Amino acid sequence: MIHTNDQILELFEAALGQMQTPEEPELLYAPIIYSMSGGGKRLRPVLLLITTEAFGGSIEEAMPAAMAVEVFHNFTLLHDDIMDNAAVRRGKPSVFAKWGGNVALLSGDAMLITAYKHLARIAPDRLPRVMQLFNDMALEVCEGQQYDMDFETKEKVSVVEYIQMIERKTSALLSGSATIGATLAGASEDDIKKVYRFATELGLAFQLQDDMLDSYGDEALGKKIGGDILEGKQTYLMVQAMSRATNEEREILRTTHTNAALSDMEKIATVKEIYNRLDVKRATEQQIELRFERALAVLDTLSIGSEGAVRLVEFARNLMGRKK
Amino acid sequence: MIHTNDQILELFEAALGQMQTPEEPELLYAPIIYSMSGGGKRLRPVLLLITTEAFGGSIEEAMPAAMAVEVFHNFTLLHDDIMDNAAVRRGKPSVFAKWGGNVALLSGDAMLITAYKHLARIAPDRLPRVMQLFNDMALEVCEGQQYDMDFETKEKVSVVEYIQMIERKTSALLSGSATIGATLAGASEDDIKKVYRFATELGLAFQLQDDMLDSYGDEALGKKIGGDILEGKQTYLMVQAMSRATNEEREILRTTHTNAALSDMEKIATVKEIYNRLDVKRATEQQIELRFERALAVLDTLSIGSEGAVRLVEFARNLMGRKK
Repeated sequence: MIHTNDQILELFEAALGQMQTPEEPELLYAPIIYSMSGGGKRLRPVLLLITTEAFGGSIEEAMPAAMAVEVFHNFTLLHDDIMDNAAVRRGKPSVFAKWGGNVALLSGDAMLITAYKHLARIAPDRLPRVMQLFNDMALEVCEGQQYDMDFETKEKVSVVEYIQMIERKTSALLSGSATIGATLAGASEDDIKKVYRFATELGLAFQLQDDMLDSYGDEALGKKIGGDILEGKQTYLMVQAMSRATNEEREILRTTHTNAALSDMEKIATVKEIYNRLDVKRATEQQIELRFERALAVLDTLSIGSEGAVRLVEFARNLMGRKK
Repeated sequence: MIHTNDQILELFEAALGQMQTPEEPELLYAPIIYSMSGGGKRLRPVLLLITTEAFGGSIEEAMPAAMAVEVFHNFTLLHDDIMDNAAVRRGKPSVFAKWGGNVALLSGDAMLITAYKHLARIAPDRLPRVMQLFNDMALEVCEGQQYDMDFETKEKVSVVEYIQMIERKTSALLSGSATIGATLAGASEDDIKKVYRFATELGLAFQLQDDMLDSYGDEALGKKIGGDILEGKQTYLMVQAMSRATNEEREILRTTHTNAALSDMEKIATVKEIYNRLDVKRATEQQIELRFERALAVLDTLSIGSEGAVRLVEFARNLMGRKK
């Protein structure tokens, strides 16, 4: 009998609730508590724990690693908010907005170290390998963030470059979590590679869907449309459109978000009109389906019981907001 | 036969020269290379390696940990320069000044992770314990930096609080390096505790001397006098003076650095006049001697050969700029 995904989330939240953080110096540690208790879907630790159980590992033994990936994830948000000058995170003031840049910087550093403190509590014989996986994952996330910032000023971003960026920025934490979970359970190298592939493809599907919802989401569901367009961000839709556009369209795509003569609604409409003309919605949907199907296909090849496979499929569907 | 301290420094520089850093993304990794090749005295890795050899350990086995503490140290400088808005580091533009805050922030994060990447290369059976020491050291350094920033706006800082702050900000990296070196050599818990004490006291002596030289250094030796006074920084001299001052003197100490009616030279002269009157130079010298003697006294109690002890004494004297 393995746990349901909901039970795993509960177990994780319980462990998180028992996390001990020093009280002093307050400006170092209070932002960590604030950040960790700010909610979030706990996707990465849950994936780690589901994966470890699917391979016959124990939730209890993997819990320190689950804590590590969640603390690490929240660390990245803290520092990203400084770099993006972001005042709001999960509907509340960001640490950056609440305490300022220096506090967010140093607390973030302490969080990254705290992630390693959690990691150090796993079984000693697993630590060298897991630490390697964790380090590689962590550096990939930094690389992804740097490429993302580079793209803001880069003249031309290819579709391939964009996929490589989100593979680091979004997929790496999921694939790192899944492979650490499998490793802790003693999965074979072959299975670990497959799990990596599963989570990588799933992460791409997830990010591409996020990109698409920015332009084609349902406003009735509370999704605000066009934020990426107004920021002039590179998204899968934008890089696809740029690759298909005429010189004239390309110039419009490049300049619309800074065109002072247009209202926000007009900017969004202008860009979406070109998206529609170039059929990038369909291209994105196809890419999402391709990645999602690839992720699920990997699961069939793993040496795990059907119950574990069902949990991973459930996790994947849930992540994509799909009932079945 | 163990190596001389100079040989150890050479071996470390050679290992550093072979450090592999990825080329892309350039803005993530170029600042790391720039920072690591910017010189510095390599005090922490050298202390780690001297200590490990003193306890019969091997330089080669300890080298990854030596790299880890040096990369970590440089990471702290990178992020400190953001927090302090510092344009110059080791006579060259800081990463912050050269590339901007976002690059310094993210490169610093990647450096911290890189430190753990080096650490992960030590012998697997030593990794859990060494990682614990490293994590505790790293968090203490963050705590010290936070207390230091807190002190900038704190009404009254006691002498005890000041010592606790520099124990974290300056000593922790030295004591961490020394204990990791001893641990890698398989030293006893008792010896590890003593080594910790040695490096802690030495670090305090070093920082207090640094504080004193800011007010009483030899300008003929190229030491610029009064920087701390002009910045209104808490130093051992200032907290000692504040604890001995009359209300009137205290007010002068508190406000002189912001007194627009005074030139820099007048500000320095005003504060030093009170320092002289309150005899804080002698109090500081006494504290330096006390800490330095305590550090050396610990060495006599270690279970190491005389050659190793000589190297550690040499390191300590060299750190304090003393010939004998």
